[in-house]
Parts: sequence; structure tokens; C-alpha cells
Amino acid sequence: VSDYNREMLALHLITNTALCLHHPLLDVVQAAVNGGISCIQLREKTLPTREFVALARELKKLLATIPRQIPLIINDRFDVALACGADGVHVGQEDIPVEIIRRWLPGAIVGLSVSSVADIKSVEANQLDIDYLGVGPVFSTPTKLDAAHPIGLDGLALIRSITRLPLVAIGGINSQNAAEVLAAGANGLAVVSAICAARDPEESARRLSTVIQTTVPHKFR
Amino acid sequence: VSDYNREMLALHLITNTALCLHHPLLDVVQAAVNGGISCIQLREKTLPTREFVALARELKKLLATIPRQIPLIINDRFDVALACGADGVHVGQEDIPVEIIRRWLPGAIVGLSVSSVADIKSVEANQLDIDYLGVGPVFSTPTKLDAAHPIGLDGLALIRSITRLPLVAIGGINSQNAAEVLAAGANGLAVVSAICAARDPEESARRLSTVIQTTVPHKFR
Repeated sequence: VSDYNREMLALHLITNTALCLHHPLLDVVQAAVNGGISCIQLREKTLPTREFVALARELKKLLATIPRQIPLIINDRFDVALACGADGVHVGQEDIPVEIIRRWLPGAIVGLSVSSVADIKSVEANQLDIDYLGVGPVFSTPTKLDAAHPIGLDGLALIRSITRLPLVAIGGINSQNAAEVLAAGANGLAVVSAICAARDPEESARRLSTVIQTTVPHKFR
Repeated sequence: VSDYNREMLALHLITNTALCLHHPLLDVVQAAVNGGISCIQLREKTLPTREFVALARELKKLLATIPRQIPLIINDRFDVALACGADGVHVGQEDIPVEIIRRWLPGAIVGLSVSSVADIKSVEANQLDIDYLGVGPVFSTPTKLDAAHPIGLDGLALIRSITRLPLVAIGGINSQNAAEVLAAGANGLAVVSAICAARDPEESARRLSTVIQTTVPHKFR
């Protein structure tokens, strides 16, 4: 487990160049930071690696200008994380095993996507050294068409009942449903389209951030 | 520059699970090793990362059973190379910059694809620390549909005249044209379909290997 503060996991912006419909990615990130996000995950599955690295480095530079510490987490590719000096890596069940990433990035934030009770049991059985679990999709979402069937608030509550690891919920989350997602046991929220595809990403981030700040009892268990 | 012997670059098998039409990839590799290849590059662009790592580790295990040293080179992803303990990384112009890979894999074989005089000039101007240049496509090839226009034997000879780096030629190379490719200045040959898609990969590798062994004057300059 890394030294990063759990509060940094409260509001993840997961970003992807292709999903930034109204503004360039760096502008979306700057606006989202102004609006109160606490963490950024860069997820690029089709960008040529050299551009992926260049973009990650630009993001790292942008984040260095922000007074508070906002970690940059790279999806899947820990070579890109090493290349840009990222703060963490997020992997799915089909990505590089966590224990390998931990060997090369001992102090980094490491997150793992799970979508079932079986996934959690595997995490616990293998005593995986991770900082948080990405849990979802909670609701259905058009962002990731290959995503599993939504687990719903009940599924989230069930997963909450069997693990003490921080849970970052993802999938169709917005400022309208954020409070109930936190009430079901999430420690943090991750959004993609709610911010990336927004006409006003700052305002979208601010609304989500406000929900998190006013839902104190469930913020971190 | 790594400590690897240049002779190991003489005959590269570039392999990809999708192109192994008649035999499973590990069987193709075993046959190609029996037939005399000196180096393997694993190139997987669509396989989930976890499977890519698992496959690379299986290959590494297979190669450890061979009496002579046959390096395993991973295409593009140096995280996969770190994860499987590969001997090297091969990158294209759109992949992670060589200087970043060198930082994390100081003793590894590092190869870079080039396809023009301008690419070579950039390599020389930046004094890139690489072990060999992958040069091509020499001839047209159906394996890589997005490949650049073939440079031909003339293009290869031109590139030979402006760099002293070892050149590994690729693109439509087979046992019929291998001798003239070596005569044009290649230090090594790389093949994909000539071995991967062959009904008898061992025989295909042996024919290529024989051409290389009987073309002594141009083997390494």
C-alpha cells in the first residue's frame, strides 16, 4: 500500500482523449481540477504509445502547477507510468498482475477493477497489495460498451460488506445519484463522461465534489 | 548498447499469435529454434496485457531449455519486458522513446524501426543508444498492411551507406531473396509470415539460416 492519502481517492476523473467532446483534454483536466477533483486516471487504449507518454507528461506538468497534490494514475501500462513519473497505475482483471506492478512501482497507488464478489474473494485470497478497488459498473453507462452488467447499489453494498479496502465506484455516476452511491458504501467516485463530455466540466466536477463533501458519514469508513 | 552478441541478431523470428496459422505459437517457436533462428521478437498489439505477459513468460521458459542463448525481445511494451524478464525491447517511431526504455532496461537489447534516410539521420543526430535498426519494409508484405512503401534493395543499400549500426532487414524476406538482402548490406534478417504461417516452420527457418551461414562476407560488417 502506498503513502498516498485516502482523501485523494474521493473524486477520480478518468480521462480519454476520444471522449473529450467539447474541450481539449488538458482544458478538461484544468477545469475539473478547478471544480474539485482529487485524482486523475488516464486511460488510452488506442493512442500510439509515444503520444500516450507525451500526453501523460503534459498532464504531470499541469498537475505540478496545482497547489494541492492530485495524483496521476495510468491505466494498464506501467511502462507509461514509469516514463512519465506517474503516481499510480490502475489495472483491470485482464491487465498486468498487481504483484508485478508493485515490484517496479513499490510506492505507487495501485488500483484494481473488480465487478463481482468472486473478484473480491480472489483479491483477499491472494492478499493483493492494492490501494483501492475500482467497483462497477454501478449503473449502466455508454462510455464503456464492453463493461459487465451493472451491479447496482445492492451489488455495491454487498461488495462493501465483504472487504475493508477503499472502494471507488464507477459507472453512470453523476451528481444526482452520487449521494446514494456513497451511502451504499463507496469511499470514492470515478466519472468519465459526466466530466469529459460536459459542456462545463468545472461545474460538473464542482457538483460532484459538493455531494462528496456534504456526505461526510460515508466518505471513508 | 547491450552486451549481447551481434550474431544473435542474424535471424529474427517476429511472432504474433494471430499469424500462426498451422501450429500454436509455442510449437512454431520450438520448430523455428530447431531450424536455426537466433532471436525472437514477440509482437502482440491486440492481446489483453495479462495474456501477453503470460505468453512472454512461457516463451522465456521455452528458450531457457535451449542450449544456445536466444534472446527474447518484446515489441513496444517495456512493462511486459520487465514483467517477463525479456532480453530486449523493439520499438517503432510511434512507440516509447528509446532513451526512456534505456533508463529502465540499461543492459537490454534495444532495436528501433526505421524506414527512411530521415529516420536514420534522426537516430544519428540524437545519438540514440540502440543495438540495431529494424529496416524496411524491403519488399511488400501482406503481414503488416499499415507498413510504409517498400524501400527495395536500393533503399537498404542507401541506408547501409549512411550508418554503421547493425541493420536487421524486414518485409517480404524469404529464402529466395535472402542472399540479395544480405548483399545489399543487412546484418540480419527478420521474418514473420515466412516462418509463422509456414506448414513446416522448422524447414523454413533452416533454409533462411542456411542462406545466412553461406553468405559470410556480408554477415556482419
